[in-house]
Amino acid sequence: MPDELQSALSGAADRVQATLGDLLRADEGTVAQAMLYAVEGGKCLRAFLVFEGARAHGLAPDLAAPAATAVECIHAYSLVHDDMPCMDDDDLRRGRPTVHRVWDEGTALLVGDALQALAFESVALGDLPASARLALSASLARAAGLRGMVGGQAMDIAAESAAEPLTLDQITDLQRGKTGALIEWSATAGAVMAGADPAPLRRYGQALGLAFQIADDILDVEGDAATVGKAVGKDAGRGKATFVSLLGLDGAKRRAENLVNEACDALSVYGDKADCLRDAARFVISRRN
Amino acid sequence: MPDELQSALSGAADRVQATLGDLLRADEGTVAQAMLYAVEGGKCLRAFLVFEGARAHGLAPDLAAPAATAVECIHAYSLVHDDMPCMDDDDLRRGRPTVHRVWDEGTALLVGDALQALAFESVALGDLPASARLALSASLARAAGLRGMVGGQAMDIAAESAAEPLTLDQITDLQRGKTGALIEWSATAGAVMAGADPAPLRRYGQALGLAFQIADDILDVEGDAATVGKAVGKDAGRGKATFVSLLGLDGAKRRAENLVNEACDALSVYGDKADCLRDAARFVISRRN
Repeated sequence: MPDELQSALSGAADRVQATLGDLLRADEGTVAQAMLYAVEGGKCLRAFLVFEGARAHGLAPDLAAPAATAVECIHAYSLVHDDMPCMDDDDLRRGRPTVHRVWDEGTALLVGDALQALAFESVALGDLPASARLALSASLARAAGLRGMVGGQAMDIAAESAAEPLTLDQITDLQRGKTGALIEWSATAGAVMAGADPAPLRRYGQALGLAFQIADDILDVEGDAATVGKAVGKDAGRGKATFVSLLGLDGAKRRAENLVNEACDALSVYGDKADCLRDAARFVISRRN
Repeated sequence: MPDELQSALSGAADRVQATLGDLLRADEGTVAQAMLYAVEGGKCLRAFLVFEGARAHGLAPDLAAPAATAVECIHAYSLVHDDMPCMDDDDLRRGRPTVHRVWDEGTALLVGDALQALAFESVALGDLPASARLALSASLARAAGLRGMVGGQAMDIAAESAAEPLTLDQITDLQRGKTGALIEWSATAGAVMAGADPAPLRRYGQALGLAFQIADDILDVEGDAATVGKAVGKDAGRGKATFVSLLGLDGAKRRAENLVNEACDALSVYGDKADCLRDAARFVISRRN
């Protein structure tokens, strides 16, 4: 990973932790502690996208921190709920025991619920104009909801009991919701904050989101659990359609590379201000976890 | 129930269903259908409070509908998640099987998650100034989160494994979060929409919320499941502290009546424009479900 990208990612993580600390105000209760645990240890890719999109529009990190924290709260809540026994029943996440394994299912349920609420508390904070904060909040709600992330989740569950495995179009549609919607929201947030045209960042975010999911499917085949930080080989084991099962390993890699080129091309309007976003796109398909 | 209150409550329910229908846009998927099921059949007390608070400030129902729908989405999501096996494990809600019994736990989890997102999508809609919609969204997030509804839930869970039953102060604190925060938010929303001082409606909402919970505890002792529409006698069966166990049945009834008087007195500034809110306060302690 290029140094500049590494430092931007860890800077994003630090800012998210700081904002989260302010929001939870040293609450020592179980749920607050489990909320911090759930957000910790992630790559903070989505927060990084918010900060870099803001930077490309000349906006300081302080202005972007509430939105960056909000999207990491939504992402973390979705992982906590996904990992529960009634969903994927996973024991390992980000290399550590999942929330319902450290605490219990009731706590995991409340942690996810409270993180979603905290996201909408966070996105409303800060010094941006009220209209920009409202636009961010409304679009985050759509990206997180039934026509975005939760909708993709629901399609994923429905696919498990379907007679036929999904087609490439169907799986692309599913992933556009399940992982794509939040990544797209994160990429475009900077333009929304600045009141600028979000179209170039939207194209970048859409291509990046799909490349990210294809890379995830490749990791599920090629990675090992210790490095990836969660269970691998689960999809193939279930006979579930993935980009790898549909395109083959080489085909999936080629498709991901094309998407990364597409993502980088979409940023031309930003010149070298978007170099870190380009590095991130390349990193997404080379990552090992 | 006075005719005017009855018609205001059913009018609120109709408007919420209409707004919800628009938001879900005839989505025929399982999760969307289960979301509608989860919101249906409630008293819509919280939506009613939003509409009446708005009316007291001269605001038309159309302006208040997005916020009224939002709070009913939050309330419905909390019931769906509370009823799950890892929480209260209830089979009956509003006289019908709970969402995880009609569908399954995974669906119930997603339905709750999607309803919370939909609440924040809804509250951002409409023709109020952006600053008012943002204020409603931010305060709804606080009322729904760890320092509001979810915080009360967490205290409730912690109390179950505590060595001592809760004191009156502790249970008042718990209920201020668990049921009080959303009722207070609903009561004050109209003032927030109008940019007016929310203090009188806040006093009304706080007294009403506590009276409501005391009445709920009384129903748990005096009601029967068929009329109440959910399991009763559960708290006493668990040896859980309630307002009835702490104050006695007569003491709890007296306390609820005093709170209703307090709630009505807080509305003096609104004159007869708040008669329906006064009727609602009186109804809350006389209701049978």
